[in-house]
Amino acid sequence: MQAAQYIGNKQFNIVPSQPITPNSDEVRLDVGYVGICGTDMHIYHGVMDQRVAPPQIIGHEMSGTIVEMGTDVKGFKLGEEVVVRPLDFCGTCPACMAGHSHICHNLKFMGIDSPGAFQSSWTVKARTLHRLPAAVSLKQAALIEPLAVACHDVARARVAKGEKVVVIGGGPIGQLVAQVAKAAGAEVLISEVNESRIAFARNNEISTINPLNEDLTKVVKEWTSGRGADVVFEVSGVKQAIEAMTEITAVRARICMVAIHSEKPTIDLFQLFWKELELLGARVYEAEDFDNAIKLIATKAINIDPYISSVSTLTNINNAFSSMDGNPQGMKALVSCQAEV
Amino acid sequence: MQAAQYIGNKQFNIVPSQPITPNSDEVRLDVGYVGICGTDMHIYHGVMDQRVAPPQIIGHEMSGTIVEMGTDVKGFKLGEEVVVRPLDFCGTCPACMAGHSHICHNLKFMGIDSPGAFQSSWTVKARTLHRLPAAVSLKQAALIEPLAVACHDVARARVAKGEKVVVIGGGPIGQLVAQVAKAAGAEVLISEVNESRIAFARNNEISTINPLNEDLTKVVKEWTSGRGADVVFEVSGVKQAIEAMTEITAVRARICMVAIHSEKPTIDLFQLFWKELELLGARVYEAEDFDNAIKLIATKAINIDPYISSVSTLTNINNAFSSMDGNPQGMKALVSCQAEV
Repeated sequence: MQAAQYIGNKQFNIVPSQPITPNSDEVRLDVGYVGICGTDMHIYHGVMDQRVAPPQIIGHEMSGTIVEMGTDVKGFKLGEEVVVRPLDFCGTCPACMAGHSHICHNLKFMGIDSPGAFQSSWTVKARTLHRLPAAVSLKQAALIEPLAVACHDVARARVAKGEKVVVIGGGPIGQLVAQVAKAAGAEVLISEVNESRIAFARNNEISTINPLNEDLTKVVKEWTSGRGADVVFEVSGVKQAIEAMTEITAVRARICMVAIHSEKPTIDLFQLFWKELELLGARVYEAEDFDNAIKLIATKAINIDPYISSVSTLTNINNAFSSMDGNPQGMKALVSCQAEV
Repeated sequence: MQAAQYIGNKQFNIVPSQPITPNSDEVRLDVGYVGICGTDMHIYHGVMDQRVAPPQIIGHEMSGTIVEMGTDVKGFKLGEEVVVRPLDFCGTCPACMAGHSHICHNLKFMGIDSPGAFQSSWTVKARTLHRLPAAVSLKQAALIEPLAVACHDVARARVAKGEKVVVIGGGPIGQLVAQVAKAAGAEVLISEVNESRIAFARNNEISTINPLNEDLTKVVKEWTSGRGADVVFEVSGVKQAIEAMTEITAVRARICMVAIHSEKPTIDLFQLFWKELELLGARVYEAEDFDNAIKLIATKAINIDPYISSVSTLTNINNAFSSMDGNPQGMKALVSCQAEV
């Protein structure tokens, strides 16, 4: 058994590891596949070293198989394939008490604040598990976590059938948000400047606009017969998007902030007032978002296979990360944590 | 009959006027009382001259009596006391078609974009009227329009019984928002720096904090047992409030933007994301907000009388405006448009 330890400065070490016997409320998983998340890329670049405290095993977009169970675990059995909702909440803070444990005041994100999934064997609380149906493979299942993010965003924004939705930013999450909104019956337009991401969206039947070549506001106004977009997802994290998002909306539109803006951008509050807009923060996901994501893949409402750009072995994890670094062509790189890809 | 014409540069002229015979869908009102709104003060200061185009009769917080009716007007009769919801919408734009005529793309605000109520006689569309019950006097009724603003804000923010609400800014609208939220069963705290406004709030049974003397964030955290406020109303229009409003909120809190920020402030979007906040624009009111405002006064759920700071005659309108100018003690100055106050 082995584990990939992030040791800082864009480097992982592959080290031998021992299985950790589960406590009474835990299970031990043979890890199947783990996707490389944007957050993992940030960690790789060293910008989160203080929080992650290397050497650390990271990784949280995963699938696996139950191989050992604690004595109190109910509702699961050995050999079942599962995914982990990697949120470790306290259960007692005001957010948890109000039913919002996903934004717990003391939330620990597994794979960032505690050891993650880039290893052969992962021991986790049973309450984090979602069972996979036969129709979903372990490879596909590594995409459930990012798809659950998209499900959460679309639910937060209350996207309804027939609505016109603009997704600003066509990276992996933006593309998945577009797919989930489309599956909810909306008409969707992705605004993206990178041509390979534009091509990816089109190949997956999502309309696109490149705001460097066309006037986004004008195109959206025409597309919506002067009304403006019913929902806008800001998934780009760039300044121009903050300007555009209030401009392209209909009255009473919802703007869902998906990208993290740790700096404080200036926002056109006059538009917010004038059109009675709604600006919604959305963070991670809830249990039902995982259930929905699993269903969307199982029922083939979303064809998830094109999102898998590559599969590497755990021993090859340094290459997997370096080939995704600054590569807009890649959507999702998977790492196989058992012997074979 | 007479009218007060705003002629620019903090001046009104009193001019003789003729009653305007109503069209088939209109009524003519004997104007009772008209309140001086913050927007009227802006107009008075000349900053809206381009939109208002003096000489112009302004005023929109009013009550009156039906004295003449167009041939197609149904559901009203001569002598009935009413208030006007001063919104002239087109009925055909996407906002109107979506049921949001109060934020019509082509909205004309009566008393700003067309002649207003500072005159003995006002002819308006019958669709703008709300009938007054016997329990509401014409004087009290001049407060219905600003109270409807507060009702709209509280409805937009979905304030629920038992919630803890902070109102930043204790001017007339802030005080009314606090009263409506309290009437909805919330516990309310006004944050205000002016001592006379603080005293006014306390005299009307609303708790207060002066953020110049106490740490608002700390006080709110203690007041809510560490949870943060469920709802924040930003009614101050000042920069510090923009900073505070994201800081004092609970997870999943609603922040209702009531003050107009025509400049673009920097907003802590990281907090918005981290706590899944909701930032809501709120503009004017809908028909049901007027109905609710009338009910709150009629049932004495809100004691509106203390909000009437003064009553002047129409001929004395220049004094009424100048005495309200930069006067934080005054809540609402009324102008009587018939002979007596």
